[in-house]
Amino acid sequence: MTIRFGVIGTGAIGREHIRRISQTLSGGEIVAVTDVNQEAAKQVVEQFKLDASVYPDDKSLVAAENVDAVLVTSWGPAHEQSVLAAIEEGKYVFCEKPLAVTAEGCMNIVEAEMKHGKRLVQVGFMRRYDSGYVQLKEAIDNNFIGEPLMIRCAHRNPEVAENYSTDMAVTDTLIHEIDVLHWLINDDYKSVQVVFPKKTKHALDHLQDPQIFTIETESGVSINAEVFVNCKYGYDIQCEVIGEEGIVKLPEFPSIVMRKDAKLSTNVLMDWKDRFIEAYDKEIQDFIDSVRETGEPNGPTAWDGYIAAVTSDACVKAQQTGEKEAIVLKERPAFYSKNTECKTV
Amino acid sequence: MTIRFGVIGTGAIGREHIRRISQTLSGGEIVAVTDVNQEAAKQVVEQFKLDASVYPDDKSLVAAENVDAVLVTSWGPAHEQSVLAAIEEGKYVFCEKPLAVTAEGCMNIVEAEMKHGKRLVQVGFMRRYDSGYVQLKEAIDNNFIGEPLMIRCAHRNPEVAENYSTDMAVTDTLIHEIDVLHWLINDDYKSVQVVFPKKTKHALDHLQDPQIFTIETESGVSINAEVFVNCKYGYDIQCEVIGEEGIVKLPEFPSIVMRKDAKLSTNVLMDWKDRFIEAYDKEIQDFIDSVRETGEPNGPTAWDGYIAAVTSDACVKAQQTGEKEAIVLKERPAFYSKNTECKTV
Amino acid sequence: MTIRFGVIGTGAIGREHIRRISQTLSGGEIVAVTDVNQEAAKQVVEQFKLDASVYPDDKSLVAAENVDAVLVTSWGPAHEQSVLAAIEEGKYVFCEKPLAVTAEGCMNIVEAEMKHGKRLVQVGFMRRYDSGYVQLKEAIDNNFIGEPLMIRCAHRNPEVAENYSTDMAVTDTLIHEIDVLHWLINDDYKSVQVVFPKKTKHALDHLQDPQIFTIETESGVSINAEVFVNCKYGYDIQCEVIGEEGIVKLPEFPSIVMRKDAKLSTNVLMDWKDRFIEAYDKEIQDFIDSVRETGEPNGPTAWDGYIAAVTSDACVKAQQTGEKEAIVLKERPAFYSKNTECKTV
Amino acid sequence: MTIRFGVIGTGAIGREHIRRISQTLSGGEIVAVTDVNQEAAKQVVEQFKLDASVYPDDKSLVAAENVDAVLVTSWGPAHEQSVLAAIEEGKYVFCEKPLAVTAEGCMNIVEAEMKHGKRLVQVGFMRRYDSGYVQLKEAIDNNFIGEPLMIRCAHRNPEVAENYSTDMAVTDTLIHEIDVLHWLINDDYKSVQVVFPKKTKHALDHLQDPQIFTIETESGVSINAEVFVNCKYGYDIQCEVIGEEGIVKLPEFPSIVMRKDAKLSTNVLMDWKDRFIEAYDKEIQDFIDSVRETGEPNGPTAWDGYIAAVTSDACVKAQQTGEKEAIVLKERPAFYSKNTECKTV
Ligand SMILES: NC(=O)c1ccc[n+]([C@@H]2O[C@H](COP(=O)([O-])OP(=O)(O)OC[C@H]3O[C@@H](n4cnc5c(N)ncnc54)[C@H](O)[C@@H]3O)[C@@H](O)[C@H]2O)c1
Ligand SMILES: NC(=O)c1ccc[n+]([C@@H]2O[C@H](COP(=O)([O-])OP(=O)(O)OC[C@H]3O[C@@H](n4cnc5c(N)ncnc54)[C@H](O)[C@@H]3O)[C@@H](O)[C@H]2O)c1
Ligand SMILES: NC(=O)c1ccc[n+]([C@@H]2O[C@H](COP(=O)([O-])OP(=O)(O)OC[C@H]3O[C@@H](n4cnc5c(N)ncnc54)[C@H](O)[C@@H]3O)[C@@H](O)[C@H]2O)c1
Ligand SMILES: NC(=O)c1ccc[n+]([C@@H]2O[C@H](COP(=O)([O-])OP(=O)(O)OC[C@H]3O[C@@H](n4cnc5c(N)ncnc54)[C@H](O)[C@@H]3O)[C@@H](O)[C@H]2O)c1
Repeated sequence: MTIRFGVIGTGAIGREHIRRISQTLSGGEIVAVTDVNQEAAKQVVEQFKLDASVYPDDKSLVAAENVDAVLVTSWGPAHEQSVLAAIEEGKYVFCEKPLAVTAEGCMNIVEAEMKHGKRLVQVGFMRRYDSGYVQLKEAIDNNFIGEPLMIRCAHRNPEVAENYSTDMAVTDTLIHEIDVLHWLINDDYKSVQVVFPKKTKHALDHLQDPQIFTIETESGVSINAEVFVNCKYGYDIQCEVIGEEGIVKLPEFPSIVMRKDAKLSTNVLMDWKDRFIEAYDKEIQDFIDSVRETGEPNGPTAWDGYIAAVTSDACVKAQQTGEKEAIVLKERPAFYSKNTECKTV
Repeated sequence: MTIRFGVIGTGAIGREHIRRISQTLSGGEIVAVTDVNQEAAKQVVEQFKLDASVYPDDKSLVAAENVDAVLVTSWGPAHEQSVLAAIEEGKYVFCEKPLAVTAEGCMNIVEAEMKHGKRLVQVGFMRRYDSGYVQLKEAIDNNFIGEPLMIRCAHRNPEVAENYSTDMAVTDTLIHEIDVLHWLINDDYKSVQVVFPKKTKHALDHLQDPQIFTIETESGVSINAEVFVNCKYGYDIQCEVIGEEGIVKLPEFPSIVMRKDAKLSTNVLMDWKDRFIEAYDKEIQDFIDSVRETGEPNGPTAWDGYIAAVTSDACVKAQQTGEKEAIVLKERPAFYSKNTECKTV
Repeated sequence: MTIRFGVIGTGAIGREHIRRISQTLSGGEIVAVTDVNQEAAKQVVEQFKLDASVYPDDKSLVAAENVDAVLVTSWGPAHEQSVLAAIEEGKYVFCEKPLAVTAEGCMNIVEAEMKHGKRLVQVGFMRRYDSGYVQLKEAIDNNFIGEPLMIRCAHRNPEVAENYSTDMAVTDTLIHEIDVLHWLINDDYKSVQVVFPKKTKHALDHLQDPQIFTIETESGVSINAEVFVNCKYGYDIQCEVIGEEGIVKLPEFPSIVMRKDAKLSTNVLMDWKDRFIEAYDKEIQDFIDSVRETGEPNGPTAWDGYIAAVTSDACVKAQQTGEKEAIVLKERPAFYSKNTECKTV
Repeated sequence: MTIRFGVIGTGAIGREHIRRISQTLSGGEIVAVTDVNQEAAKQVVEQFKLDASVYPDDKSLVAAENVDAVLVTSWGPAHEQSVLAAIEEGKYVFCEKPLAVTAEGCMNIVEAEMKHGKRLVQVGFMRRYDSGYVQLKEAIDNNFIGEPLMIRCAHRNPEVAENYSTDMAVTDTLIHEIDVLHWLINDDYKSVQVVFPKKTKHALDHLQDPQIFTIETESGVSINAEVFVNCKYGYDIQCEVIGEEGIVKLPEFPSIVMRKDAKLSTNVLMDWKDRFIEAYDKEIQDFIDSVRETGEPNGPTAWDGYIAAVTSDACVKAQQTGEKEAIVLKERPAFYSKNTECKTV
């Protein structure tokens, strides 16, 4: 059984995922596309020589009989409606982050999915599929470092577009750490406080850069997360978990080792798209495989989308107040009990 | 157009490639299988739930109308006959190394393919698709290290099976270096000499281990290649190219970084199967994509298979004589001019 | 001219420095020793075969005519009195940290030294002489990373003695970061806040471990300093300075690289005494050389001792209040203008 | 007791050692100097403000009553005569490499020393005092890698002076590997063969560069030693010992770690003088300390000087013949039994 996808939103990442499903992965095909920009949708069909119909809107695409699963890659604010429509039709959904732009919107989806009675939704938090994070998770789960006590991480971009604003450091950047870290240590967040260090001259006036988030978890782990989006030197994702018995850290991105001009060096990526390319492949392959084999997706859940939304709101508030802000989640429904979460590799 | 594969030989790597094509890659499917052990062939169809016919032998499989391409993964001595049969039928062939067990056998294939008039054959030298070697090649091609002068490499296994013999250090192990190094520096081999260092106590009586091969190229590059198949500590592939302006070296296999018990460490692989897993995926995806897009495979050619066979013979002779042995290739036919070789990434 | 030293306090580090001066360094000799434990003083003379007199107390030792310089290596609370006595006699003083246990005590010394009219005092903050920190300082001074924005550092011990208390994380441990970091970035501290992450099970009941200090400097640099004194795995000093154009980080302590048992590893020190052994040599050699060549010591000043005391007080207060505490220094006297500070290498 | 040195040869390394003994180390002083260039000798006395007499020649200096030990740092061809003169007078000698320029000359010294009846001579092979090599030696001696089987090493300089000739790759460069490697694995050399890889364009016409030496030891260890003295990128000393159970390798020279301009890098030295600076300090401090404490030097012996000379001759012959040349040592006298060799750290 091949999973037949309908794609809502044929922008940058939409096209990437279409290429992935039609040219790289196994077991999926694209049979339907839509975009508010209908021209864009049509062009995509041509560009990738798809055997796919172009629909006028998400509703009609979701309803199409030959669509087994919906890929939501439109702008963030449009996600909630499309995901709800898909659940309504009992269709599987792979939704790019964010699941919805508000915590309330995420709860709507959570409730709809629970009402439906089985998992349909996977959120596009691809880092859980990155081999580095997977190795960290294994080490922690195997008790290699004992109880985790602290995490230090950094999310650095060489530069950002002009419209990148201070809150986007949370909603576009830190959001990936927000998702991956609670999964990594199997914990929940409790509070967050933000420090603005001396600002780099490379940031525009309206942007606070870098920023440091201190997040505390329910069990007391202290997370120090740096976001620095004009760091100039490269796209660099660092994560180190310090435990009672030892420390584990993400590998550097693999690069040949060079000796030249009085330097021993390796390459640092400049383009974020190269960093998680395999993780993107794996998250969607896992979505396809799980749906085919178990009838349910296996990756980040709607509840994870909700956690991200609540945490993200608290982080933005903490940016504004300078105070320690509480991160208050509703009680986790049994439907999303932790052991249903994705097991990769 | 999906490439419909017929598989000859459903042993270990045959099954791996079948899994790959049917479950991981895009654009191929398995429609036919055969094995001298017919039970094995049937089991594979079941195990992978293939929609494929089981054929009594390679001839009939190759002749089947719905077979577009043949995957040869039988024992080495059986390869030549199957590849020739496929060329005869004008079918594409992906043949696991070795292309044939003798240089003469390889020449037979080269001649058959030239007679056919366009490339049909790709040999399974997957290292050219490994991201580390690809980065080395780019650096060298971009003149980053100037003219290459020396290469140091090592091929180490933790241990080998009882039946592993001294010449298999060449035919099963060094063979991958033989293929990848001349491609890397775009050169041809001229001579080889072998040194047997002190033998490890972990090698059985009949096996010389480790061994060091000194290979000289036409342009004068000196290659020092260590084969050490009872190194105990891990499966480790090292390669360093020393040039006029600098040096480039393969990365270590990516691993989380650990601090524990007075050690700062990373993991070394123990199982060779994990090392080139992505390269195997990429070589066959490239075979599928090239055939679909250009009508010809793009990877290692029958001529590369011939080079490997001639070099391999000289290396085995050098093991026996202890002398410097010449590596004498026929003239490269224009059909296999260097710039037709694979361009990856 | 050989510098003739009188040593006050022949405990652990006192003996280390005596060995250093008499057996390793050039240009100094030990001519006088004292200790409240007179037996200890006498034993030291024997143990190191010194040609030195034993004095009953610091006053008499300081006054001895053949004493050119005083080495204060008694317990912290005794330092102030001995240093003041030495200044009174116009003798040079190398005083182990802390200069005095209170900020007021340090100010007394600062005032006495200014009254004397030229520098006599050097404080034993040896990290400034460590080749790693020296390289960091050069890189920063040469504007290699542009304006420093953030510092991340860690001070980890495998374990500590039973009597190690929560405030000693500041006064015995963080104190070295306190001294070296303001020197490194040529800045002054402004405030500090402390977070207590989840406590390791390896810490005794009375000890909070680990601890994280967030220190802000006058220019806005944000310092994140971890103290973790039961980290088990090793003695590990980390320091990374993140600037507008790039990042510089301390090297790992040099170790052979090992491949064994599926691990690629280097050694991490277990004993702090090994980490800065060269820095101790260099700080005292520099003291000797500067006094001989320029008539004044060149290393960390009494003012640096005062900065350490004030900062240390604020850090301890921040441990108790959990609040952000101000670090308020008096105005730096011209006598201690920054460019008189030590230039090493 | 301070060791009073007389120095023969006040050139580059002579002055370095004079600075070392008079300004950095403990327990030695310079009381006499001589040089065929008497002006040079006089200048040195002034430059370092030495309280030392200038002698007209080595004979008179060696005979001076207040000279306890002689430092021979003249040109290589002059060493033998000065060392023999010192032994004649029963004076200790620290002789820079080479001990003598011929194997016969070395044997003359060996015989004179044996006749004298106790060790007087130490040869300036400083690598044995380098902390990296010391760690390698400890690991090997502790059986960490089991039986050593192979060694790979490289000696690279960014460039050399015009007068550097092909044989100097042995006598000036490889000579240090020759000394340190047999000490490292406690073995003797048996044969050597040389390969000249493609020549770098950065070498002058008269110079073969790079060169690769394959040296076999009595126990069968195979050593692959690269000498590359126009490698451009840096002064780089690599050494890796491959054993039955694992591998140990020299650390890179410690450097801060930098992230900048899409590179993660460390510095490689450009100047050889910086590489072994501590080893030079330690070898002479050890000479001083051993002589004071045991009445005999502890470092590389006259026999080691002889081994270096014989091996060096064979290597030069192998450069000329292209053949495998035997390395034939006389039998080791009990006087130089292995366990009298230096124990460092
Ligand atoms: N997981 C990741 O690492 C990652 C990376 C990039 C983007 N994203 C997420 O993917 C989403 C898309 O990002 P992008 O970079 O492709 O943006 P984009 O602007 O390139 O594309 C968005 C597309 O959606 C279309 N669209 C907008 N509203 C729509 C609607 N209501 N119905 C149908 N189409 C609509 C737009 O016309 C546009 O073509 C965002 O939510 C973003 O956060 C995730
Ligand atoms: N590229 C690589 O890294 C790599 C790795 C492993 C194996 N190989 C190559 O792949 C080939 C197969 O290796 P393997 O490990 O799978 O061996 P295997 O013994 O597990 O499988 C070989 C299979 O071929 C079958 N067979 C033998 N002769 C046949 C014939 N004439 N017709 C049909 N089937 C026949 C056997 O019954 C067996 O099932 C070998 O040539 C080997 O060198 C390459
Ligand atoms: N820079 C560093 O890294 C470093 C390391 C260790 C210790 N220190 C400092 O060095 C000092 C000594 O530490 P230690 O580990 O040697 O302690 P220690 O307890 O081993 O030795 C202290 C000695 O001082 C003597 N003493 C105490 N009061 C005295 C007085 N009034 N007059 C004379 N002698 C007196 C004691 O009898 C004892 O012998 C402390 O201030 C400590 O903070 C610095
Ligand atoms: N261990 C090492 O790493 C190392 C490094 C450099 C040099 N060396 C060795 O040290 C020695 C000196 O090297 P250098 O670089 O200082 O050379 P240099 O040319 O700078 O100095 C040699 C000095 O010896 C003097 N001299 C020559 N013959 C003399 C004689 N018969 N009596 C007295 N003085 C005499 C010369 O006038 C000159 O001043 C050489 O043997 C060299 O191989 C060893």
